[in-house]
Amino acid sequence: KSEIEKLNEDPRIHGLLLRLCRESYTSKILNAVKPEKDVNGITDFNLARLVHGDICECVVPPTARAVIKLLEKQGTTVNYIYYLSSLWPIVYPFMYTYLFFSFVFFCSDIEISRGQAPKPIHILAKEIGLLTEEIEIYGQTKAKVRLSLLERLKDQPDGKYVLVAGITPTPLGEGKSTVTIGLVQALTAHLKINSFACLRQPSQGPTFGVKGGAAGGGYSQVIPMEEFNLHLTGDIHAITAANNLLAAAIDARTLHENTQSDKALYNRLVPLVHGERKFSAIQLARMKRLGITKMDPKTLTADEINKFVRLDIDTSTITWQRVVDTNDRFLRKITIGQANTEKGFSRQTQFDIAVASEIMAILALTSSLSDMKERLGKIVIANNTKGQPVTAEDLGVTGALAVLMKDAIKPTLMQTLEGTPVFVHAGPFANIAHGNSSVLADKLALKLVGKEGFVVTEAGFGADIGMEKFFNIKCRASGLIPNVVVLVATVRALKMHGGGPNVIAGVPLKKEYTEENLKLVSDGCSNLLKQIQITQQFGVPVVLALNVFRTDSPAEINLVCEIAKQSGAFDAVPCRHWSEGGRGTMELAEAVRKAANQQNNFRYLYDLELPIVEKIRIIAQKIYGAQDIELSPAAQSQINCYTQQGFGNLPICMAKTHLSLSHMPEKKGVPTGFVLPISDVRASIGAGFIYPLVGTMTTMPGLPTRPCFYDIDLDPDTEQVKGLF
Amino acid sequence: KSEIEKLNEDPRIHGLLLRLCRESYTSKILNAVKPEKDVNGITDFNLARLVHGDICECVVPPTARAVIKLLEKQGTTVNYIYYLSSLWPIVYPFMYTYLFFSFVFFCSDIEISRGQAPKPIHILAKEIGLLTEEIEIYGQTKAKVRLSLLERLKDQPDGKYVLVAGITPTPLGEGKSTVTIGLVQALTAHLKINSFACLRQPSQGPTFGVKGGAAGGGYSQVIPMEEFNLHLTGDIHAITAANNLLAAAIDARTLHENTQSDKALYNRLVPLVHGERKFSAIQLARMKRLGITKMDPKTLTADEINKFVRLDIDTSTITWQRVVDTNDRFLRKITIGQANTEKGFSRQTQFDIAVASEIMAILALTSSLSDMKERLGKIVIANNTKGQPVTAEDLGVTGALAVLMKDAIKPTLMQTLEGTPVFVHAGPFANIAHGNSSVLADKLALKLVGKEGFVVTEAGFGADIGMEKFFNIKCRASGLIPNVVVLVATVRALKMHGGGPNVIAGVPLKKEYTEENLKLVSDGCSNLLKQIQITQQFGVPVVLALNVFRTDSPAEINLVCEIAKQSGAFDAVPCRHWSEGGRGTMELAEAVRKAANQQNNFRYLYDLELPIVEKIRIIAQKIYGAQDIELSPAAQSQINCYTQQGFGNLPICMAKTHLSLSHMPEKKGVPTGFVLPISDVRASIGAGFIYPLVGTMTTMPGLPTRPCFYDIDLDPDTEQVKGLF
Repeated sequence: KSEIEKLNEDPRIHGLLLRLCRESYTSKILNAVKPEKDVNGITDFNLARLVHGDICECVVPPTARAVIKLLEKQGTTVNYIYYLSSLWPIVYPFMYTYLFFSFVFFCSDIEISRGQAPKPIHILAKEIGLLTEEIEIYGQTKAKVRLSLLERLKDQPDGKYVLVAGITPTPLGEGKSTVTIGLVQALTAHLKINSFACLRQPSQGPTFGVKGGAAGGGYSQVIPMEEFNLHLTGDIHAITAANNLLAAAIDARTLHENTQSDKALYNRLVPLVHGERKFSAIQLARMKRLGITKMDPKTLTADEINKFVRLDIDTSTITWQRVVDTNDRFLRKITIGQANTEKGFSRQTQFDIAVASEIMAILALTSSLSDMKERLGKIVIANNTKGQPVTAEDLGVTGALAVLMKDAIKPTLMQTLEGTPVFVHAGPFANIAHGNSSVLADKLALKLVGKEGFVVTEAGFGADIGMEKFFNIKCRASGLIPNVVVLVATVRALKMHGGGPNVIAGVPLKKEYTEENLKLVSDGCSNLLKQIQITQQFGVPVVLALNVFRTDSPAEINLVCEIAKQSGAFDAVPCRHWSEGGRGTMELAEAVRKAANQQNNFRYLYDLELPIVEKIRIIAQKIYGAQDIELSPAAQSQINCYTQQGFGNLPICMAKTHLSLSHMPEKKGVPTGFVLPISDVRASIGAGFIYPLVGTMTTMPGLPTRPCFYDIDLDPDTEQVKGLF
Repeated sequence: KSEIEKLNEDPRIHGLLLRLCRESYTSKILNAVKPEKDVNGITDFNLARLVHGDICECVVPPTARAVIKLLEKQGTTVNYIYYLSSLWPIVYPFMYTYLFFSFVFFCSDIEISRGQAPKPIHILAKEIGLLTEEIEIYGQTKAKVRLSLLERLKDQPDGKYVLVAGITPTPLGEGKSTVTIGLVQALTAHLKINSFACLRQPSQGPTFGVKGGAAGGGYSQVIPMEEFNLHLTGDIHAITAANNLLAAAIDARTLHENTQSDKALYNRLVPLVHGERKFSAIQLARMKRLGITKMDPKTLTADEINKFVRLDIDTSTITWQRVVDTNDRFLRKITIGQANTEKGFSRQTQFDIAVASEIMAILALTSSLSDMKERLGKIVIANNTKGQPVTAEDLGVTGALAVLMKDAIKPTLMQTLEGTPVFVHAGPFANIAHGNSSVLADKLALKLVGKEGFVVTEAGFGADIGMEKFFNIKCRASGLIPNVVVLVATVRALKMHGGGPNVIAGVPLKKEYTEENLKLVSDGCSNLLKQIQITQQFGVPVVLALNVFRTDSPAEINLVCEIAKQSGAFDAVPCRHWSEGGRGTMELAEAVRKAANQQNNFRYLYDLELPIVEKIRIIAQKIYGAQDIELSPAAQSQINCYTQQGFGNLPICMAKTHLSLSHMPEKKGVPTGFVLPISDVRASIGAGFIYPLVGTMTTMPGLPTRPCFYDIDLDPDTEQVKGLF
């Protein structure tokens, strides 16, 4: 049977949607496709037509075989046909984007993305209730949303807040992003419930290295995926600029202090302009911190001038690194300042990838422009020679950093393949930072979906890391309370935890993973059980989403879902969003909806007032299952230093591998009896957390021998990007 | 007399334009301001109202004192009042932006910029004849214009092409940008002639260092100036990303070649995927260059594999540097690759500021997406150990670079203070590159203004550098022929050339510059005469624009204009655009219009087929007035190398100081009898020029002791930027 015949015979199917080239769109066709019955509530044929560039769409009843024949006679290939399987009297006044399933056997993500014409972003913005003056359009498919919306909707009750987390993953990832996108596609495009996905913006560097894109995949993607994966609306570029301005200011200041007398420094810092010296606002603020209350620069004593002009940065304590959004391994350790003009003041330092910048973490945690400015000013870049913290504010650069970040603070609106709204905003590292998208995007989305709507956001890595930080760091910063946790698992990852062979990126999977093996699955569910228990410590209901692969057997799928339910999950359902879009995640959507009405006993894991060591120990024991922690002397000394500097009451952001519950990536399942070694402790004071290092964290990925860019190309005629995946 | 009384009595004044807060905009006011006569062709009161955010504007006749009184009674401050002094039946269907002159004594550039409400960019786009699908909006005030426009308007005749160049400047700059903007404001807003300004995008780094903004100044600016000076539409960020991806690819490749056997490299470069090895398109292209015609990876001999997998980059010849758009002096000389993971393959290199990237020069010179891709592929990054050039294409990265640059190739549309259109696109260095804005922006603008319209573009530095490169490099690339050169001079710079004391940035001017001194002026006109003669060598009529300062005396102004006319300038006129906007440059606009109708005998200075040395000598002698040139051994050897590699027929881009016609910045006026030393010769093969170095060029500026950022701030409530200038 042909695909079309099968569709025609399916009783659930109400109509077909054809996508035709403009040339095929003759009056003959127009007459032939006139619908004989009301298809999906669209009675007027013209209403059903959307013209995107050179593609026309029209809805026909499934019985309209004549159309297909006519087209075939004309020699037209009907590339995409989709069945309209549900009626959607909707809450958002949505013009839905129907999913076009390709008939080609294998479609890459970018081919699927390109096969779908996104609706103009200003139309989506209107559909979800944004006013014209609340958006800033960036091209046809992206818009920034202004924070003034929060003020306008301040009396609107928030929607439900859903977190997507995962079990301990294989190095391939288990599909949290695709579940997130599939879930909102199901909620909004199929169940008629307002929803919003809030995603992290991926780093551009890895797109050209090994990883490829990060916009979801298959039929659960954010589109256009090339925009999502490349410059987007420039937020990461803004972070790079701000980060590096601060870095340049540190070294330039040190050089100037090392080569000038107090008097020369003072004359330059507070220069004579039209015969007068004046402190700038940021200099007055510094004077105040120094306890100098004078306003007239002429009246400072030599001692006060000395205090004012000298930051006395101890260069051995500088923790602020430069960043670049490129996988550039040769910048992992470098020596700077070797030109003659820098007079011998060279030092060793490093570049990190841009998303590792503390400014990214600040963007993700901030609640307003003034809060962001304050956090930027509080960034500690080093200690001075007396052991006191030196901040961005001390360098006089707070305002400039805020100016560079003024647009980045606005979340970017995009859409899923099925035309439902997505915010893309902030993408901090999940080890040295907290790995969650922005507080502001979540807050805006919770207002926009309304009381009955859902906001689905994702936490990086496994639940032991991303989710723990979501609760203890992000929710603390936002004051928001999550309603449901969706825990993503795959049969593949469970088999690995059950003792299956190593899973290595780029190497074909061993047969244990492609053939049914109930023993491995059931053994591996220990990790699932542990992650469910972790979630339950926070008092939020958990739904297991089993991301189904083609090779998973029905028995394996049933087994996982049964174990999950026995382990305390509110529900456990298989998901087929990758191959089916939102339709494949409807069961999950229903489960999430029910779970959101459960009683919610949300609580943080630890009290902020506890000593730093105590907080680390609680996370290690209660989350990771460690017996205890062990601090290196360096870690102990840093903890003492931060405590003494008054930073002891910040939350903790563990920098630990995501490949095991323990610190040992090779230990799968549920490791026990280990002592978690804390090698060092650092702080992101502006972002507002202390981050203990459990092992070495790579903050600069490299390019492999054959980077992705060998396959990436631009067609100069169509302007289409090829080879992203 | 009050300002309003004076305006009311001025017979030239037809009406007043009030700008009021929305709150003051009551029905009482509405009735009171109803105009009693036709003001500027706007009969309907509602038509005259434009609402920009919270500001309302209305036109009232100057006699409507009642309005002013009413407002004052209400306690409303009438912040800005402008007289509508001219009627403009227009060619573009323009809704003009009236200039609001501030009553405050001194307004900074950003205050003037902010005082003017830009019209929404989609309205400007419509006014100048762009179709909706030809623009990509970036917020309210910027839009990218698609290159498809060139195809649509290919039969439209080009407008007139005007280049703004300058005499040898002081370190303060003599106002080429403000003349450019003033001139288009005069042409379009006052003389009703379609015009377009095409400007370079400034580097963001210096905005926070010493320089401040570069959007023009006073009442001749591109607005909003903070957008112009900061991220704009991300083009420089895209260049940074592309430049650094190529840099990372070089070092990573070298490392991989140094640490792997031929076989291991081959297995990774042409991996087994689903049991098969396949060359990618870019690998097949490389095979072809190597003379290997095999398509099946299995059939290569060991020798062919060796040729294919090894670029054998001679790291001592790498000329490709990393870039960052920050003034970061500590990156002028650095050692990279010092982490253990790089296995000892460290080397010394440097970061340049982003706009110094060859990719910026490519962007400025390219004519289409496919041309850009080709140029990116041709970039030579080093020689191999056999002395042959290694290109970006050899590294397999051409497509990825093109993908990163796909949006940057579209010029950005903005507007002047008077609402006339501006393209901002590309900003290559004027020493190691050619210092001119993009060919594509000029081409698009020449179509958009129509046959009778004018496109005004600017060349960096003095005419001896920027203009020479404009003619010999940019016009050669574009095939466009300029109609008029506007040569900008100031009394200040002429006095310096006449023997006046040193002019130093940041130090108040000596009295020679603030008091009349005809002797210094007349002596200094030697430089003006020389620059006019330089222009005449290219066969294009030249108009002198004397950028008038408050301290210039009428006698000084007359003297300069007289000398210029005697020296062969078509005309010479004083300009007051800084304080008066387009109204202050109307005389210049008239002169340019007449000059554009003169006969044009445009010719290049040298034949490309001449040997490199010969071309350098022609520029040195005919333009700079040097007796001869002197090549260092390094320079001679590089010339031999480039000639042997087949790059001998490229145009020459001299990297010379702009502060003197000679290579010695302190030699003012017209130095003679000097021998120009060429210390080294480099090449930008992708951009398409050879650049001889005359002395050392700084490609990374630094931060001073008190950088601009001390004054830069963001008001978190209004989102306004403060302290940019």
